[in-house]
Amino acid sequence: MNIKKYIYNVIQPAEKGSIISKIFDLFIMAFILFSVASVFIMTFPVSAKTIRLMSRIEEWSLIIFSVEYLLRIWTADYLFPNDGKIKSRLKYMVSGMALIDLIAILPFFLPMFLPVNLVGIRAFRLIRLLRIFKLHRYTAALASIGEVFKKKSQEILVSIFFVSILLVISSLLIYYAEHDAQPKQFSNAFSGLWWAVATLTTVGYGDIYPVTVLGRILGTVIALMGIGMVAVPTGILSAGFVEYLEQKQSDTKETDKEEEKKYCPHCGKKL
Amino acid sequence: MNIKKYIYNVIQPAEKGSIISKIFDLFIMAFILFSVASVFIMTFPVSAKTIRLMSRIEEWSLIIFSVEYLLRIWTADYLFPNDGKIKSRLKYMVSGMALIDLIAILPFFLPMFLPVNLVGIRAFRLIRLLRIFKLHRYTAALASIGEVFKKKSQEILVSIFFVSILLVISSLLIYYAEHDAQPKQFSNAFSGLWWAVATLTTVGYGDIYPVTVLGRILGTVIALMGIGMVAVPTGILSAGFVEYLEQKQSDTKETDKEEEKKYCPHCGKKL
Amino acid sequence: MNIKKYIYNVIQPAEKGSIISKIFDLFIMAFILFSVASVFIMTFPVSAKTIRLMSRIEEWSLIIFSVEYLLRIWTADYLFPNDGKIKSRLKYMVSGMALIDLIAILPFFLPMFLPVNLVGIRAFRLIRLLRIFKLHRYTAALASIGEVFKKKSQEILVSIFFVSILLVISSLLIYYAEHDAQPKQFSNAFSGLWWAVATLTTVGYGDIYPVTVLGRILGTVIALMGIGMVAVPTGILSAGFVEYLEQKQSDTKETDKEEEKKYCPHCGKKL
Amino acid sequence: MNIKKYIYNVIQPAEKGSIISKIFDLFIMAFILFSVASVFIMTFPVSAKTIRLMSRIEEWSLIIFSVEYLLRIWTADYLFPNDGKIKSRLKYMVSGMALIDLIAILPFFLPMFLPVNLVGIRAFRLIRLLRIFKLHRYTAALASIGEVFKKKSQEILVSIFFVSILLVISSLLIYYAEHDAQPKQFSNAFSGLWWAVATLTTVGYGDIYPVTVLGRILGTVIALMGIGMVAVPTGILSAGFVEYLEQKQSDTKETDKEEEKKYCPHCGKKL
Repeated sequence: MNIKKYIYNVIQPAEKGSIISKIFDLFIMAFILFSVASVFIMTFPVSAKTIRLMSRIEEWSLIIFSVEYLLRIWTADYLFPNDGKIKSRLKYMVSGMALIDLIAILPFFLPMFLPVNLVGIRAFRLIRLLRIFKLHRYTAALASIGEVFKKKSQEILVSIFFVSILLVISSLLIYYAEHDAQPKQFSNAFSGLWWAVATLTTVGYGDIYPVTVLGRILGTVIALMGIGMVAVPTGILSAGFVEYLEQKQSDTKETDKEEEKKYCPHCGKKL
Repeated sequence: MNIKKYIYNVIQPAEKGSIISKIFDLFIMAFILFSVASVFIMTFPVSAKTIRLMSRIEEWSLIIFSVEYLLRIWTADYLFPNDGKIKSRLKYMVSGMALIDLIAILPFFLPMFLPVNLVGIRAFRLIRLLRIFKLHRYTAALASIGEVFKKKSQEILVSIFFVSILLVISSLLIYYAEHDAQPKQFSNAFSGLWWAVATLTTVGYGDIYPVTVLGRILGTVIALMGIGMVAVPTGILSAGFVEYLEQKQSDTKETDKEEEKKYCPHCGKKL
Repeated sequence: MNIKKYIYNVIQPAEKGSIISKIFDLFIMAFILFSVASVFIMTFPVSAKTIRLMSRIEEWSLIIFSVEYLLRIWTADYLFPNDGKIKSRLKYMVSGMALIDLIAILPFFLPMFLPVNLVGIRAFRLIRLLRIFKLHRYTAALASIGEVFKKKSQEILVSIFFVSILLVISSLLIYYAEHDAQPKQFSNAFSGLWWAVATLTTVGYGDIYPVTVLGRILGTVIALMGIGMVAVPTGILSAGFVEYLEQKQSDTKETDKEEEKKYCPHCGKKL
Repeated sequence: MNIKKYIYNVIQPAEKGSIISKIFDLFIMAFILFSVASVFIMTFPVSAKTIRLMSRIEEWSLIIFSVEYLLRIWTADYLFPNDGKIKSRLKYMVSGMALIDLIAILPFFLPMFLPVNLVGIRAFRLIRLLRIFKLHRYTAALASIGEVFKKKSQEILVSIFFVSILLVISSLLIYYAEHDAQPKQFSNAFSGLWWAVATLTTVGYGDIYPVTVLGRILGTVIALMGIGMVAVPTGILSAGFVEYLEQKQSDTKETDKEEEKKYCPHCGKKL
C-alpha cells in the first residue's frame, strides 16, 4: 500500500478497529473541543499568559485543520474512484462536510484580507464532530430527520410565512394599544415585534408586556395563538415521521411479498 | 388579443415566464412591503420630511391597489368564463383574496366617513403577498393545513371551549387565593385572568405570580394543565395530518385497486 | 300532550326548531353568564348599589337553577322511559350533567349549614353551557377526546408519576445548590419545588432562578427535560388520536367489506 | 411453607389479596414518604427537637430499607428459580429495582467513609414507590414508553447533539452581540449559554435578555428555533408511539392471518 492510500485510510473515520485511524480521530476531536473551549475562556477577564496560550492553541488548531483539509482533497480520488482526478476533488470540495471544514478554517485566512473578527464561527467546528460520530451509528436517524424536513419543507415554509405575517400584525396592533400607556417600553413598532416574538414563542422574558385592557386582550389572543404556532409544525412533523416510517415498512413488505408469496411452494401455481 | 385580455394576463400571477406579468408582480410586492415598512417607520420619532415621504408612499400604494382592485373586478369574467358578466364579478368580489384586497384599500376610503385611524390594518396587506407566491409552489401545502383545520374544527372548538372555562375558573380561584396577600397585583378577577393566560400558555412574563402557599399550589396545578393545553391540540392536529396523508394515499390506492379488481375471478364478469 | 311532557320538551336542548325551547335555552344561558359576570364584577371596588344588584342577580340565578334542577328530576322518567319512576330519577341524578347542575346551585344551600364562601364554585356553571351547545354539533368531537384520554389513562398516569418524582428530586437538588447563594429566594425546599414547576412546565416567571454555576447546570438539565415533559404526553395523545381514527375507519370498512364483497353479483360464487 | 418462602411472599408486591403483604407494602410506602418529607422539613428553620425527630425517622428508614434489601437478596433464589444460589442473587443485585434500593440506603453507609452530605439522594427513594404500584396496573404503559424511547434513542441522541451545538453557537453569538451593551449581564460566554438555554427551551426567566438590535434579531431567530426544538422530538416520539401501537396490532393480526392463510387454495397443502 502506498503512502497516499495509507493516509486516506487514516483520515477516514475509524471503522474496522484500525488503531492509528482511531487515534487520529481522537486527536482531531480534542483540537475541535480545545478550539471551542478557548473561545469560551477568552470571554473571561483572563491574564495575558492565558490569552497567549489560547492563541497558540487556536493557531495550532488552524494549522492542523488546514493540513487535514488539504489531505482530504488530495485523497478524494479514493473516495470517488469512478471519477477523474479533478472531478473527484471538486465533487468532494462542494460536499456538505467539506464546506463545514472550510468554514472551520476560514478565520485563519480571512484576517489577511478583511479586518473582521469572526471568532464566533469557530463554534461551527463542533458540527465537524458529527463526521467522527456519524458513520458508526446514526446515519439512519439523521437521514430520517433530514428526509422528513425535506418532504415537509413546503408546509414548514407556509407556516413560517404565516408566522411572519402574524408577527408583523401583532407588533403593530400592540404598539398602538400600548404606546400611550408605556411610551418607554413600547417606543416603536420594533419593540412591539420583540414582544410579539417573546409571546408567540411562549418565551415571555417579562422585559416588556401589555398593561392596558386592550393590550392584555390582544396579548391573550396572541398567547393562545402561540399554542397553535407550536401545535401546527409539531403536527406536520409528527405526520411526516409517521409517513416516513410507514413508507419504509411498506417498501420492505412489498419486496418480501413479491418474492415470497407469488407462488405456492408445493404445486407451483400462482396464488 | 384585446386590451382587457392582455390586462387580465398581466395581473394574474406570472406563470409561464411572461416578463411583463412578472414585473407587475414585483411592482405590487414592492409597494406592499413599502407600505408596511412605512407604518413601522412612522412609529419612530421621525422628521416632518420623512412623515411627508411616508404619506406620499401610502397615498400612491392606495391608488395603485385601488386601480388593481378595479382591474381585477373588471377582468373577473375571464376568471369565471362560465358565469355571466355580473355573476362572475360578484363571485370574485366575495372570494377570500378579493376581500383581503378590499381590506387593504379600505383605510383610504373610510376616513372620508369615519374619524378613525386604521393604520394597523395595513399589515393585512402582507397576506396579499400570498397571492404572488402561492400559485407557484405552495398550493398543496396550504390545502393540507386548511383541510386539517377544517376537519378538526369541532375538536378545536371543543378545546377552546374547555380552555375558556378553565381560564375563568383559574382566574377566580387565584384571585381569591392571592388578593389579600397581593392586593395591588391581583386587584380584581381580570388580573387573575391575565395571570391564568400567561400560565396556561406557559408564556410566564413574571409581571404577576402567586406568592401564597395556596396560590402556588393552584399555580402548580394550572401550569401542569398548561402542558395538556399544548398536548391536546397538538395531538388532534397530528392525527389530522396523519389522517390527511393516509386519505390521500388510500385514494390513490383505491383507484389502482378498482382497475385491478373490477372483474370476478370465477366468471370474469365485471363486478 | 300533558303539562309534564310539555315541560320535558322545553327543558331539553332545542333540536327541532321549537321556539319556546330555544328561548328557554337562551334564558338559562343568559343567567349562567350573568351569574359568572357578577362574580367578576364583585372583585372590583364597586358601590353598595352594584353589590345589591349583583346579589339580586345571584339570588334569582339560584332560584331559577334550583327550579330547573327539580323540573329535570321530575321529568327524568321521560329521559329513561324503560326504567321505573324512582330508578330513572336516581339514574339522572348521578349522571355527570346533573351533578354539575347540583354543584352550580350548592352555594345557595350550603351557607345555611356552613359559614364558607364558595363563590369560586359559580364558575363551574360555565360547564353547564356545554349542555346547551353539546347536543347540536360536538358530541363526536367530545367523545373522541374523552375516549383518547380514557384509553391512554395509564400512560398519562405513569407520566404524572415520573413528573412528580422529577419535581421532588429537582426541588431538593436546586435547594442545596442555591440556598447558600440566595437564602431569601430559596428559603426552603418548597421554594425549590415552585422553581422546578416553573422550569419543567417552561412557564419561567422569573421570580426565582439559579445564579450559581451548579444551580445553572441543574437548571439547564431540568429545562431540557421540560421539553421531554411536553413531548412525551403530546406523543402519547397524538398516537391515541391516530389510533382512535384508524379504529373508527377500520370499523366502518370491515362492515362495508363484509356486506358488499362476499359474493360475485353475477355468478353468486364466493370471492 | 417455610419461613423464607413466607418472607418472599410478603416482600413481593401484594397481588392476590394477601393482607400481610399489603400491610408490608403500605408500611414501606409510609417510610418512603416519611423519609422524603423529613428532607423537606429539614430545609425549614426548625427547632432542635424537630431535627432530632427527623433524624430518628431517617435512621429508622435506613434500618428498615437495609433489612428489606438484605431480605430481598436472601430470597432472590425464589425470584429466579432456574438459576443457582449465587447466580440468582447476583442477577437480582444488578437489576434496575435492586440498584435503586441500594442507592436509597447508600447515604447510611457512605458517611462512614466519606464526609459528604448526600441528602438529596433520598428523593430517589420515591422511584421505589414504582415497585409498589407497578405490578398492579401499569406494566404495559411503562413498557410502551420505555420501548418507544429505546427504539427512538438514535433520533433523540442526534437531536440532543444538534441542540448542544446550537446552544454553543447561540451562546457565543449572543455574547459578542450583547457584551458591550450589557457587560454585567453578559459577562462571559457562559452567561450567553444560560440565556440560550432559557430561550431555546422557551422558559424565559427574564433575568437575562438581549437589548441591542443585533441581539434581538439573534434572539428572534433562536426563539423561533426553540419551537423546532419542541416540535422535532415531539414528532419523533409521536411517530414512535404510533409505530409501537401499529406493531402490536399487526402482531395480533399476523397471528390471525397465519392461522387462516396457512394453506394453498389450489392444492390444500400447507405453505
